[in-house]
Amino acid sequence: MTGKKILDSKTQDGVSRRGVIGGAVLAVGAGTLATHAMLPTAPVQAATKSNDVGPGDLDEYYGFWSGGQSGEVRIIGVPSMRELMRIPVLNRCSATGWGQTNESRKILMENMLPREIAFWKNKGGIPLNGDTHHPHMSFTDGTYDGRYIFVNDKANTRVARIRCDIMKVDKIISVPNAADIHGLRPQKYPRTGYIFANAEHRVPVPNDGMILDDPANYHAIFTAVDGDTMKVAWQVMVDGNLDNVDADYQGKYAISSCYNSEDGVTLAEMTSAEQDWVVVFDIAAIEAGVRAGDYKTYETDVPVLDGRKGSKYTRYISVPNNPHGVNTAPDGIHVVVAGKLSPTVTVIDVRKLPDVFSDKIKPRDAVVAEPELGLGPLHTAFDGDGNAYTTLFLDSQACKWSIEKALAQFKGENVDPIIKKIDVHYQPGHNHTSMGETKDADGKWLVSLNKFSKDRFINVGPLKAENDQLIDISGDEMKLVHDGPQFGEPHDCIIVHRSLVNPRQVYDRKDPRFDDLRKLAEKDGVVLEEAKHVIRDGNKVRVYMYSSAPVFSLDQFTVKQGDEVTVIITNIDDVEDLTHGFTLSNHGIALEISPQESVSVTFTADMPGVHWYYCQWFCHALHLEMRGRMLVEPRAT
Amino acid sequence: MTGKKILDSKTQDGVSRRGVIGGAVLAVGAGTLATHAMLPTAPVQAATKSNDVGPGDLDEYYGFWSGGQSGEVRIIGVPSMRELMRIPVLNRCSATGWGQTNESRKILMENMLPREIAFWKNKGGIPLNGDTHHPHMSFTDGTYDGRYIFVNDKANTRVARIRCDIMKVDKIISVPNAADIHGLRPQKYPRTGYIFANAEHRVPVPNDGMILDDPANYHAIFTAVDGDTMKVAWQVMVDGNLDNVDADYQGKYAISSCYNSEDGVTLAEMTSAEQDWVVVFDIAAIEAGVRAGDYKTYETDVPVLDGRKGSKYTRYISVPNNPHGVNTAPDGIHVVVAGKLSPTVTVIDVRKLPDVFSDKIKPRDAVVAEPELGLGPLHTAFDGDGNAYTTLFLDSQACKWSIEKALAQFKGENVDPIIKKIDVHYQPGHNHTSMGETKDADGKWLVSLNKFSKDRFINVGPLKAENDQLIDISGDEMKLVHDGPQFGEPHDCIIVHRSLVNPRQVYDRKDPRFDDLRKLAEKDGVVLEEAKHVIRDGNKVRVYMYSSAPVFSLDQFTVKQGDEVTVIITNIDDVEDLTHGFTLSNHGIALEISPQESVSVTFTADMPGVHWYYCQWFCHALHLEMRGRMLVEPRAT
Repeated sequence: MTGKKILDSKTQDGVSRRGVIGGAVLAVGAGTLATHAMLPTAPVQAATKSNDVGPGDLDEYYGFWSGGQSGEVRIIGVPSMRELMRIPVLNRCSATGWGQTNESRKILMENMLPREIAFWKNKGGIPLNGDTHHPHMSFTDGTYDGRYIFVNDKANTRVARIRCDIMKVDKIISVPNAADIHGLRPQKYPRTGYIFANAEHRVPVPNDGMILDDPANYHAIFTAVDGDTMKVAWQVMVDGNLDNVDADYQGKYAISSCYNSEDGVTLAEMTSAEQDWVVVFDIAAIEAGVRAGDYKTYETDVPVLDGRKGSKYTRYISVPNNPHGVNTAPDGIHVVVAGKLSPTVTVIDVRKLPDVFSDKIKPRDAVVAEPELGLGPLHTAFDGDGNAYTTLFLDSQACKWSIEKALAQFKGENVDPIIKKIDVHYQPGHNHTSMGETKDADGKWLVSLNKFSKDRFINVGPLKAENDQLIDISGDEMKLVHDGPQFGEPHDCIIVHRSLVNPRQVYDRKDPRFDDLRKLAEKDGVVLEEAKHVIRDGNKVRVYMYSSAPVFSLDQFTVKQGDEVTVIITNIDDVEDLTHGFTLSNHGIALEISPQESVSVTFTADMPGVHWYYCQWFCHALHLEMRGRMLVEPRAT
Repeated sequence: MTGKKILDSKTQDGVSRRGVIGGAVLAVGAGTLATHAMLPTAPVQAATKSNDVGPGDLDEYYGFWSGGQSGEVRIIGVPSMRELMRIPVLNRCSATGWGQTNESRKILMENMLPREIAFWKNKGGIPLNGDTHHPHMSFTDGTYDGRYIFVNDKANTRVARIRCDIMKVDKIISVPNAADIHGLRPQKYPRTGYIFANAEHRVPVPNDGMILDDPANYHAIFTAVDGDTMKVAWQVMVDGNLDNVDADYQGKYAISSCYNSEDGVTLAEMTSAEQDWVVVFDIAAIEAGVRAGDYKTYETDVPVLDGRKGSKYTRYISVPNNPHGVNTAPDGIHVVVAGKLSPTVTVIDVRKLPDVFSDKIKPRDAVVAEPELGLGPLHTAFDGDGNAYTTLFLDSQACKWSIEKALAQFKGENVDPIIKKIDVHYQPGHNHTSMGETKDADGKWLVSLNKFSKDRFINVGPLKAENDQLIDISGDEMKLVHDGPQFGEPHDCIIVHRSLVNPRQVYDRKDPRFDDLRKLAEKDGVVLEEAKHVIRDGNKVRVYMYSSAPVFSLDQFTVKQGDEVTVIITNIDDVEDLTHGFTLSNHGIALEISPQESVSVTFTADMPGVHWYYCQWFCHALHLEMRGRMLVEPRAT
């Protein structure tokens, strides 16, 4: 049996039992998907250049883009769409030493679960990959506060936090009891507060091998992380698979889309029912439940509440098959759930949720609109004028529609909520508007993160870029102004006004990042900023130096073959942009040392001979000459 | 003693003995470097947008950018300056599985040296970093032929080759006897042919620990790699440190800049003399020497010829202190050597080199011009009209000058070769023109790779992007049209007309890349394209499957805790841009499977329980549902 046969039979099985979307899913078979994309249904918008940012001019917005399976987060200037920085998060970064320096490894390892520590013990200690999807900034009072970016790791079930003052990760935690964190959003009000994180895949809890091929005993887990301490606050077990999540503007609810109400494990099983649901979580009720001890614990001492159907902590609102995006409008009232396999989006009024929880009304009574927008609605963004912008994956379009008209239509008025559609290229997933997930949505820019670029760029071989398109939504027309190729996969993004972000130019020497090294140095009688010391401690050697363009304070040091060597370097240059590096040739060692930063790395000096170390971040006219020698004396034989 | 004191005393020592540049080097002390950069000496050019590439329009040129210490190579569209693809080379790539798949690990490991294999044996087998500097395409008859990109690794002494039909690395070799490959250029005529590679750092040969702190017995090694077989053809031992290299247009010579004629090991020692040199290598003489057996062997059986002063294989041409860039003009005659610590560039006429080798004239008699251009000349690019463009690191400028006028000036005519200067932002290293290192230089675009961006972009914290600026040189004025932020460090680049590059859209199933897997599958009685097999072989398990949007052919497989599992996947979709992925949750496993590609990965299944695998390259409306389960049975206790 060939692969095509499997695909077709499975897809048809799914479709034949699906009423809402009819035969549309067939149109996404591999071949037809390409054909569709090559034949846009409307002429491509002529280029305008309202996004011009001339040489030396500054972007108005910080875009924070997840790097998807690249494991990183990217800072993109908006509207220029230029990549301003890569922040390594879960990947191993050759340039900065992320995943190699002692400091980054501590962050990557300190909150691993016991089973992970055991698994990775003989495998290098940490995974070297990640799958970041949803980068979101911390909120205060319904808008961004510039403190942190939080992001999920679907690949290895983690949540990471980036400090926006230095644009580096400071915390990574593994989430217990759960498998594969997908949706992630911060609490919007009164502040963040909680980070809500959806474990997408259903697994046994605990997942220790006692239960294997028994899907009825698999569970999905909703997690609330304390964004200040980066500890898991509590978890809730739910029915179905968790997908995306958003929070309201009152601090009362989190709302997750769920697919696979069928509890299936194959594609045909997961898409068979016509309705799935969203789960609404009552935060105050859950907190009271935790206080009352109404929970179990499994892998760790994190309280896990039972939020399956019938629970007081949750309500299940039926929506069409396999819903995907969940997006709360800046009006603070409406939450839009995208249909994916249904051409509709479902609008929920959060003001009705108290009555749903008190059973005064049925869950579906919280639905106040369900407009039909087109094929494959995935995610919705907002301007500040009551309009919503939904990506249509199958139609390769963005659809602008009016929330107010959708409400009126749902009440029976004969109005069409759709205002305009624009072709995108091709197959959009997430989208985002400037400030659009806050109460301060400003309606200037829409980014459409398109999964296929195909013919939009000169051909770079079988692996192609994705295409992040920038659309000017400041006028009545939506104007496509830029095609932005991106290495896979910037799954989602946010667009933050630059007035809200205020990074440092150089590190603060008092930063707690350096506390461990300072303590180590003090024990060795060394002042980091003045260091030029080699301390032997048995077969451990600590080499302290500083960098100051264009020299390291030590131009040589000697160790014995087999020594465990720790190099500790402080960049005493205090000039903006004067980053140094330390690369130890032929030892696989390379790290970044930004102005006023201290960093360390530990390795075994197993190779006798003369080995040069050099500065690999360009620093000075004599940068090339900035180097020194490690002399490794051969082991006596 | 503080760091500043060390720096100042060393720098002043260096300067006090340097006549050519006088006190200028002092001006690159950390503080003044920043001050200088913030105060450009001429007004910034107004933005023009001659580089507009509208949505859906295609770039005219492929730019191949090295990724510096990121270890990758980037494809940049020119003139849009958009990043179209990242090619992992020496880094560990979370998205594609480079450094993790069996196929990439074979490429990374198969040409390691015995000492490296021993060193890395208990450290994961391979280094996970690299430092790519100089990406250059293979040539035929003096211009690009679209076959390969070659690039050096300074960090771990390697040379890598990228196949331009698929834009993936197919060979990486370690260079014996040498330390830290810096300059790299291909033979231009009649074809590539050789790749010339400079080992920058002087070390003992062999570097086995018998010689340590004895710099007089350190050596620099020049290497010729056979670009077809990717084997080292021969090496030449030289005096001084090797820096950059270029080849002529006749296939006769390679020319390397050398600094540190002093044979020093500290900054002060390396910059004390007023003159260093370039070394000219006589290719035919060296080949004859190899045939005649006039060589020694050290670490491997690679022939190492003695090219130190007095050798028939080399000539040393004196040039001012610490020369840097070496660039052959499209006229096939002139080679420009940048002065770095001298405000001059030195022009050599290759037609005079036969007389230099036959001792009819002195080496310096091959010098036909030495114009003074400004402070810190580093690299030179060319248009097709006899003009050269030299980066001035200290002046933060690009200088356009006339080769013909420089020749006339050298002969005593009262002409100024400098045509125009333009400010760049800030501190440029390499530069490059469209097709400018070939005989087909077309004079349309100049890229200046600037090491500091400082205030050119919104602030992203202590670590800042570099700034690759695009300058329109098609008219009489040089026009700055684009600021291009880049993650560190795109050290160098080339700009290739798109007519010369013709990648595939999907893989060829007959590609030798897949031979190993096909043989393995045949042994197991499996057809890769139809695979849905689990083969147990003791405690080794081979799992064969294919991917076809939106399913894997196996939606589950079962192994025992402790099994060594190899997953072999073939993407049978044959549609452009339909890349799949395979991520095994919580196991650190993720890889790319592009259309018609076969890939494998091996791991130990140490964690009992239910583990999901999923597709992480977006493929289909039901991409999210594309997954399966690995069930790991617990070890009997």
